[in-house]
Amino acid sequence: MSERNAAVLREFGTDLEITSFPEVEPKAGAVVVDVTHAGICGTDMHLQRGKLPIPLPVVLGHEAVGRVRWLGEGVRTDATGAPLHEGDLVSWASNIPCGTCSYCTDEDEPSLCETRKVYGINQSCAQWPHLSGGWSEQIYLQPGSTIVKLPEGVTPEQVIALGCAGPTAVHAVLDIGKPQEGDVVVVQGSGPVGLAAAMYATMAGAAKVIVVGGPANRLETARRLGVGDVHVDIFTSTDVASRVAEVLAETPDGRGADVVIEATGVPSAVAEGIDLTRKGGKYLVVGQYTDHGPTPLNPHLITRKQLQVLGSWAFSPANHLHHVRSVPRLAARFDLSQLVTRYDLSAVNQALADMRSGATLKPVLVSGEVS
Amino acid sequence: MSERNAAVLREFGTDLEITSFPEVEPKAGAVVVDVTHAGICGTDMHLQRGKLPIPLPVVLGHEAVGRVRWLGEGVRTDATGAPLHEGDLVSWASNIPCGTCSYCTDEDEPSLCETRKVYGINQSCAQWPHLSGGWSEQIYLQPGSTIVKLPEGVTPEQVIALGCAGPTAVHAVLDIGKPQEGDVVVVQGSGPVGLAAAMYATMAGAAKVIVVGGPANRLETARRLGVGDVHVDIFTSTDVASRVAEVLAETPDGRGADVVIEATGVPSAVAEGIDLTRKGGKYLVVGQYTDHGPTPLNPHLITRKQLQVLGSWAFSPANHLHHVRSVPRLAARFDLSQLVTRYDLSAVNQALADMRSGATLKPVLVSGEVS
Amino acid sequence: MSERNAAVLREFGTDLEITSFPEVEPKAGAVVVDVTHAGICGTDMHLQRGKLPIPLPVVLGHEAVGRVRWLGEGVRTDATGAPLHEGDLVSWASNIPCGTCSYCTDEDEPSLCETRKVYGINQSCAQWPHLSGGWSEQIYLQPGSTIVKLPEGVTPEQVIALGCAGPTAVHAVLDIGKPQEGDVVVVQGSGPVGLAAAMYATMAGAAKVIVVGGPANRLETARRLGVGDVHVDIFTSTDVASRVAEVLAETPDGRGADVVIEATGVPSAVAEGIDLTRKGGKYLVVGQYTDHGPTPLNPHLITRKQLQVLGSWAFSPANHLHHVRSVPRLAARFDLSQLVTRYDLSAVNQALADMRSGATLKPVLVSGEVS
Amino acid sequence: MSERNAAVLREFGTDLEITSFPEVEPKAGAVVVDVTHAGICGTDMHLQRGKLPIPLPVVLGHEAVGRVRWLGEGVRTDATGAPLHEGDLVSWASNIPCGTCSYCTDEDEPSLCETRKVYGINQSCAQWPHLSGGWSEQIYLQPGSTIVKLPEGVTPEQVIALGCAGPTAVHAVLDIGKPQEGDVVVVQGSGPVGLAAAMYATMAGAAKVIVVGGPANRLETARRLGVGDVHVDIFTSTDVASRVAEVLAETPDGRGADVVIEATGVPSAVAEGIDLTRKGGKYLVVGQYTDHGPTPLNPHLITRKQLQVLGSWAFSPANHLHHVRSVPRLAARFDLSQLVTRYDLSAVNQALADMRSGATLKPVLVSGEVS
Repeated sequence: MSERNAAVLREFGTDLEITSFPEVEPKAGAVVVDVTHAGICGTDMHLQRGKLPIPLPVVLGHEAVGRVRWLGEGVRTDATGAPLHEGDLVSWASNIPCGTCSYCTDEDEPSLCETRKVYGINQSCAQWPHLSGGWSEQIYLQPGSTIVKLPEGVTPEQVIALGCAGPTAVHAVLDIGKPQEGDVVVVQGSGPVGLAAAMYATMAGAAKVIVVGGPANRLETARRLGVGDVHVDIFTSTDVASRVAEVLAETPDGRGADVVIEATGVPSAVAEGIDLTRKGGKYLVVGQYTDHGPTPLNPHLITRKQLQVLGSWAFSPANHLHHVRSVPRLAARFDLSQLVTRYDLSAVNQALADMRSGATLKPVLVSGEVS
Repeated sequence: MSERNAAVLREFGTDLEITSFPEVEPKAGAVVVDVTHAGICGTDMHLQRGKLPIPLPVVLGHEAVGRVRWLGEGVRTDATGAPLHEGDLVSWASNIPCGTCSYCTDEDEPSLCETRKVYGINQSCAQWPHLSGGWSEQIYLQPGSTIVKLPEGVTPEQVIALGCAGPTAVHAVLDIGKPQEGDVVVVQGSGPVGLAAAMYATMAGAAKVIVVGGPANRLETARRLGVGDVHVDIFTSTDVASRVAEVLAETPDGRGADVVIEATGVPSAVAEGIDLTRKGGKYLVVGQYTDHGPTPLNPHLITRKQLQVLGSWAFSPANHLHHVRSVPRLAARFDLSQLVTRYDLSAVNQALADMRSGATLKPVLVSGEVS
Repeated sequence: MSERNAAVLREFGTDLEITSFPEVEPKAGAVVVDVTHAGICGTDMHLQRGKLPIPLPVVLGHEAVGRVRWLGEGVRTDATGAPLHEGDLVSWASNIPCGTCSYCTDEDEPSLCETRKVYGINQSCAQWPHLSGGWSEQIYLQPGSTIVKLPEGVTPEQVIALGCAGPTAVHAVLDIGKPQEGDVVVVQGSGPVGLAAAMYATMAGAAKVIVVGGPANRLETARRLGVGDVHVDIFTSTDVASRVAEVLAETPDGRGADVVIEATGVPSAVAEGIDLTRKGGKYLVVGQYTDHGPTPLNPHLITRKQLQVLGSWAFSPANHLHHVRSVPRLAARFDLSQLVTRYDLSAVNQALADMRSGATLKPVLVSGEVS
Repeated sequence: MSERNAAVLREFGTDLEITSFPEVEPKAGAVVVDVTHAGICGTDMHLQRGKLPIPLPVVLGHEAVGRVRWLGEGVRTDATGAPLHEGDLVSWASNIPCGTCSYCTDEDEPSLCETRKVYGINQSCAQWPHLSGGWSEQIYLQPGSTIVKLPEGVTPEQVIALGCAGPTAVHAVLDIGKPQEGDVVVVQGSGPVGLAAAMYATMAGAAKVIVVGGPANRLETARRLGVGDVHVDIFTSTDVASRVAEVLAETPDGRGADVVIEATGVPSAVAEGIDLTRKGGKYLVVGQYTDHGPTPLNPHLITRKQLQVLGSWAFSPANHLHHVRSVPRLAARFDLSQLVTRYDLSAVNQALADMRSGATLKPVLVSGEVS
């Protein structure tokens, strides 16, 4: 069999190297996919720099779309029960929870499973089947993967546009935050998770979505996509007190938003977000993925305002499935393709550099045939 | 008509004065009650010192039991629909929400109503009907009050034993925290709210309740009452890290409690409580009634552990009703009467002094006939 | 003061008579409104015929819009807290729950309150203040009424277009059924409640709404309004088994809808609706307002499919408030004004006749100034 | 290796035959257990008679306890994470859901998974590993089984006493019905599912549990165990209307129970149960496992009383796990061992005959060492 290229991280803090690996035929229950589009996520920059404990060497890339090359024995359908064939365009959940721990079963929170496998993160390419990340011409999807065919009429770019921010927002907004028809929602942050959260809040019936983010080009992108009804730029409005007043003035009677969604990663945003939440409202803490230590917060406000402060970690395979199925609906309302900047797989290091500089919102590595 | 005595606060920071007021016959929908037992609550000490903005002069006392003297025109039943007669022993919710604001209706959180009337707190005795607090021989209950007859076989002392901590715990534990059968629950704090929360967690099926509190005599009282399965003394275990380890060791696999209930009023308890909560668990912030400003908290833990951090403020009339109806069940499991220390109404200042010194857990002012 | 006309039902089964009553100035907390638009609801036909036990004589009409004539002492805002002035266009909830029974408080289901007052239904015009129904030039709104100003840019016709079907659907769909983003929803029935339910299901994020109703002109109206994605005509598809097959074919894998909403009033629709619901799905029984006795249902399906069969009765004042506030959003998506047929108040008997014949969907009586 | 006996059903409607099969060593992830106690469930009688489509020949038995003989490679802990060793006493969930279908993931209802494997039901003993049912000296537990060590101090008889009725009740009562502290609960049926449901309702804080069942010896057993606060005998109270009146008289104000749990399998019980449920209450349909066709039900009551009629089908592995962990708590309140009647494995046909005659409540087949 032939060889396929992949972008490998060998040492933290260094450039990725394009390396070739032999193709592997799928065992029973597995599927081999030729990757056509693979997204770069903010987390990848942390991974490259060694901010999280992952095994090396590794083929990075945990959000991707591709075309089925071979189906392993016994694989006849995708996760929705639709027939699956070689040549089908598919996406897949980046993680495979263990399915048996208390989080997977008793607590029904597979996002908390401590032993789940994650493509492009905790599977070293030193081990068989090697092609275990998305920044590659090919990936080997193990039995138990949640694979879903792209809905009719949907392009790979529309699916990859939100990357893992899509299922992350499904989990946070639809499973945990559950805004109601007519709610006023504030989203703190205008990166992919913030934008995806704003989209899902709108889809779930929010009457008004206020995006508090920046810099200006990001908010401009949000406006062009049709995401958010009001946009507040934190870079031109750096005084927290007046910014809070500005946002509150957009809520009924100035009493605060029904649901506020934090998608910034900045600890100090949490105190500000609590001030934006109405009494009895929900504050979702979605963006604090990395540990920056404590920040001053006033617990009296949690009691006095009877808040629900709700964390949301990652997402489950079901959230990924939900996201892919909802892309046609999202695409009918928001111009998703505006988010994407394309790079050849071989230009992965340039793509990473551009993302760090803030020049792009969603860099996507493309290989082979591209629709 | 004759006069009735009441304990009046005229100036913040001074002793209360026993003052007599004329009896008032009830208008339509109102009820006049001869108070037999009135509890002193921790909040009363804050009120006396002027820590909260209340009108003066005021008859304090927001938790009480008494005997119906006169029923106003049209009052035929208590809030449960049971026939109400003069001479019946009753308790009543301290607050009357407005019933029409968005919190009372749309959000279904009357505890957040901003214009509710509260006996013994925001009703000045300078205004008619004057007898508007519980530390009195008589109280005038306005139309809209939630009045409930004492269940058969229940003594006033059993009802007053938990005071407003009872309905506060009903609201926090049963409405908001909702522990499941088999849950491991930690309660931080061993004052009336902590003990009441521990009781309701047990009633709702907790497999193990761990009380983290103090000083020693409070925990000894908890043990004598049968409240809590494990007791950790914060006064003899002042190193937070080792105390956290000690509590975690009491939880399955050391992973933390399913539900942790804060009932301390101490801001630093919140960071400790978050460390005691398992991934996917609930942390109830119930005790932060007064504003002590910010404390360092790590929002990464909320995201990473996918916590639900839930505030609970005060309680609704329905919570009071639930509590009074549940007293027979509580009394069958816990020796409630051990909580009470009796004082004559005229000894109100002594009762307040003893409470400040920590000598008593639930001082109760008794008037007239006492069962 | 002058006199105002109202349509009075004096005997069941007879025509209404236009009768004049003296204007009454509002007492404290009350509001007098000059009615401009009053809807006729299917229930009114039952009321006229004496199918429900109501006091006579009565001014019918429980859905209306008008202009504030006089505000009683102490009324400064509407139920949302917005300032209220004489001359403002307002709508109001038809019912005033007692606010103190267990359904109003403990169970938080004011729609189940057994002693609530309902304008146009259980308030006889023989009693003061006489003008107690909507089919009138004026109505006296008692203290405790939930009054809401029409949102800016909204016309009275847009508010009255759905009549009480709007808040009924808010209650059923948003409070009880709670469809999720992406759900497939079936609505049985294409009368006002069915159409309103279909609209709210769409607003809450349904991926596809299938309306099963008739006759053809009703479905045509639904299509013109933009309500529903698929329309199945029960009059041209009278074989239940093939109709079920036709609807199931519109659901993913033919497994049934996530949420099915019954809004027909026909008992046999329930068995059919259960067959349309997927395993683990929800079946809302919203339309069975009158008692037609038992119908054959198979309880094995409830166990085997693990269904949630959920009744929804009437609505609360908060639901009315939610509906009026959501009219701008509804109107942006659906052409509400197409539903309305106008009549002068004096033509009330003609309007009732036309409704019985099926010629109109929402007859509206207009008085005085009409916007 | 040696041979082990098992009770095999070869043809529907015939006696089981004791047949020996060769022991099989466990593959990676599997576990071989020497069965010590295996329960007989009402469903087994239906299975024997061919009322459900199962493959033959089959080793029946889907509820059991045993001692670990061999652990397959990689098995180090039970489902709770506790270390697992050869010789440990264990129980295991009878079913293994697929883990990837929409019910297992998206809907979080593995009880609805359509391809799950069930020991003792849909695994023919004609296929390897043959020993796939509980009525056997040994069983082969495949990878993915949910295995749990018996809690300290718990006997196998206490675990097997409720059989699969235990996890069935956990699913119905704790996951779906969720009675609140203080609720009045009616249970229709006094077989194992009814008794287990009554126990869990009590554990979850029900103020009063009313068991409506029979015959007299079953109710006498319930009383001896301490299950239920009130017992109504349907055999001596055969007039439905007066029986309904009798039960309603035990509920507050005669308004009906907060939660009613059907565990009878008799379709006509459903109409009666709906009459026993208060407005706004929950009616759980748990016992309608087999299809007896339609029964007359009045859907108007579902709308008018705004009922939640909730089906519950089978249970998940997590429910089994919950049940085994809760046995110590159940055993502290209810005398579980009174339920069991022991038989040697070789007396399986006698045990089935005694169960059919109603002489026993929970027959248990014992093999080898018995504690």
